[in-house]
Amino acid sequence: MSVTSVPGFVAAGTACGVKVSGADDLAMVATADGTPVTAAGVFTSNRMTAPPVLVCRDHLSASGGRAAAVILNSGNANAATGATGRVDAETMCALTAEAVGCAPHEVLVCSTGWIGYPLPMDRIAPAIPTVVAALDADGGPAAAVAMMTTDKVPKTTVVTGSTTAGGAFTVGGVAKGAAMLEPNMATMLAVLTTDAEVDPATATDLLRDAVGVSFNCLTVDGAESTNDTVLLLASGTAGPVDTADLGIALSDACRDLAVQMADDAEGSTKTVFLTVTGAATDAEAAKGARDTANCQLVKCSWYGEDPYWGRIAAEMGAAGITFDPDTITITYGEQVVYAEGRACDVDEQALAAHMAGRRLDLGVDLGQGDGTAWIVTTDLSHAYIDENMRTS
Amino acid sequence: MSVTSVPGFVAAGTACGVKVSGADDLAMVATADGTPVTAAGVFTSNRMTAPPVLVCRDHLSASGGRAAAVILNSGNANAATGATGRVDAETMCALTAEAVGCAPHEVLVCSTGWIGYPLPMDRIAPAIPTVVAALDADGGPAAAVAMMTTDKVPKTTVVTGSTTAGGAFTVGGVAKGAAMLEPNMATMLAVLTTDAEVDPATATDLLRDAVGVSFNCLTVDGAESTNDTVLLLASGTAGPVDTADLGIALSDACRDLAVQMADDAEGSTKTVFLTVTGAATDAEAAKGARDTANCQLVKCSWYGEDPYWGRIAAEMGAAGITFDPDTITITYGEQVVYAEGRACDVDEQALAAHMAGRRLDLGVDLGQGDGTAWIVTTDLSHAYIDENMRTS
Repeated sequence: MSVTSVPGFVAAGTACGVKVSGADDLAMVATADGTPVTAAGVFTSNRMTAPPVLVCRDHLSASGGRAAAVILNSGNANAATGATGRVDAETMCALTAEAVGCAPHEVLVCSTGWIGYPLPMDRIAPAIPTVVAALDADGGPAAAVAMMTTDKVPKTTVVTGSTTAGGAFTVGGVAKGAAMLEPNMATMLAVLTTDAEVDPATATDLLRDAVGVSFNCLTVDGAESTNDTVLLLASGTAGPVDTADLGIALSDACRDLAVQMADDAEGSTKTVFLTVTGAATDAEAAKGARDTANCQLVKCSWYGEDPYWGRIAAEMGAAGITFDPDTITITYGEQVVYAEGRACDVDEQALAAHMAGRRLDLGVDLGQGDGTAWIVTTDLSHAYIDENMRTS
Repeated sequence: MSVTSVPGFVAAGTACGVKVSGADDLAMVATADGTPVTAAGVFTSNRMTAPPVLVCRDHLSASGGRAAAVILNSGNANAATGATGRVDAETMCALTAEAVGCAPHEVLVCSTGWIGYPLPMDRIAPAIPTVVAALDADGGPAAAVAMMTTDKVPKTTVVTGSTTAGGAFTVGGVAKGAAMLEPNMATMLAVLTTDAEVDPATATDLLRDAVGVSFNCLTVDGAESTNDTVLLLASGTAGPVDTADLGIALSDACRDLAVQMADDAEGSTKTVFLTVTGAATDAEAAKGARDTANCQLVKCSWYGEDPYWGRIAAEMGAAGITFDPDTITITYGEQVVYAEGRACDVDEQALAAHMAGRRLDLGVDLGQGDGTAWIVTTDLSHAYIDENMRTS
């Protein structure tokens, strides 16, 4: 049920001492024979881009979209570490390449954890041969565990589809986040594998589209990390596939991981699915959905299980998008709470039952056009503050 | 020390029963003789514009920028109330006009409180003659109290300047907010008075500029209310003034009220002054400052008195503005904590002492150009959640 559910891929997780707790903090996903395969990545747009992200971009460019392995550490983000950070990320790739038997630019690297501290390379470097030696066809779940920071549970997925020839292809994935870590930075990392045949350019396009309808529709606190990375390795051993079919499988895998992230977000007691319809454009729907999902006031009311639609309406109004207060309709679960410019009579018991659930479904129809957006987010709880008010 | 510090203005506050607590909830500011004077307003840009805001805009347009009185209620925002809300706001103005002795369109109206419930006009209407009868040259502080919602203290200001002829002019003010109310909506209301001579068009320009450097530089939680309103009444009895001098006095008065709002914001334990310099443009500086000020993660660290600059850097990076990680400098109080791409050695004791204070000074220099911005904001505390997680 992870990256190693795909034939031809191996993975491992181990502890190398980056985390003072002694928990696993070094993970690898690789091809079983060390052969480079099609590789694609989608990265954070944060200007404080962490060195491992810069190295991934360079390596994908130098290799023409090929990679044999991904090395990941948790506990330290290797971010805001300047030239030293760059050297450390390159060293992690070089040591991995040596042990796996590929070129250094055929290795990708991810880090997640504290910002602003150099990596403890004296602990990471000697552990790289160890994690390579531990690579196993059942190692995906161990890799998912070693990626974790404040995650309470590891996140894995597997999705299947049909190849052009009528056979099966598989997409597997491991991920961590999207909540703060250590407990200070929202970083999401995901590594996907597939045996579908796809060229690097198409893989990149499909991965970007899949991220657009999944991880980019997830917001916990509006904070975009310096390290956010989604990688795909595609071996092609299952043969050719219809591009659309692979796109659907990748989107399904990414959406599954994104919802797992929301369910496990720091301090979260509610996973909230917010759908905006009837916007003038998709972009306006997305703006309204994202601003509302990131509004502290709205998040507090979800935590309090309070169906106070006034906040939703006010936040939509503040989003700078087109609508008329008299044409907006707001729905909590099955209950229409606001329509035609006024509060509606509701089944109070049914509404309270919906608000008390672990997952909330909210709908806003703006009554303007065909623009739609979907977002998954979380509430804002005392526990979120507890986890984030101090770094030590 | 308020609107009635300006000669020729009267004010009052009373209880009419909108608030179930019985606290004062009806306020008025007016000219002493009921004569209309120059009036200007700056209003929320929220699309869910509340009826009293719509009525203010109409009245300022119909009167050519003249008003004799402002009637304000707290406890109910008269927002998302459709056609009924519009009629109620007009009725408040008509009843005030009748009692004061001016035309209905020479009255402005503000409401603040719950969204989505019709005003209890059966309680407000009979109290309007009462509040008019109570108008007094010392009534400003009482008006400030009657505007309060979850404010813990009333907010007033007075600023003086010199007229062209060498005499004195005064700007007085009362305000409420900017925190949630009742406890559900961030609304800020302010009424300013002055005896400076100014025409309506100039008054509007000066008021907009003053709001731009004060209330618009204040963010508690990024939520823009449906009802935000700043009004100015200018009698002209002190004679002509230099436009720049009046602008400075208005800006000082608004800035004083804005800082009082931050100090009294719901659940706030820190008032944070964040200055961004060295940006490519003022607009980029403002974007970086606002995004950082509204970041939940950053706010939690202020609450925890944790000088974790990694969050500040990451949020600036996510703001989509131009800078290089190696040229950004971050300062807490007098301490430079990050510069030239790496963490700096700091005086830990001095840094801890600064973080423990009621007010924090943070600086970010982006090393790009001359763009600057200033923002005042608050931390995110357990008490904020307590006040906002449930409406009842």
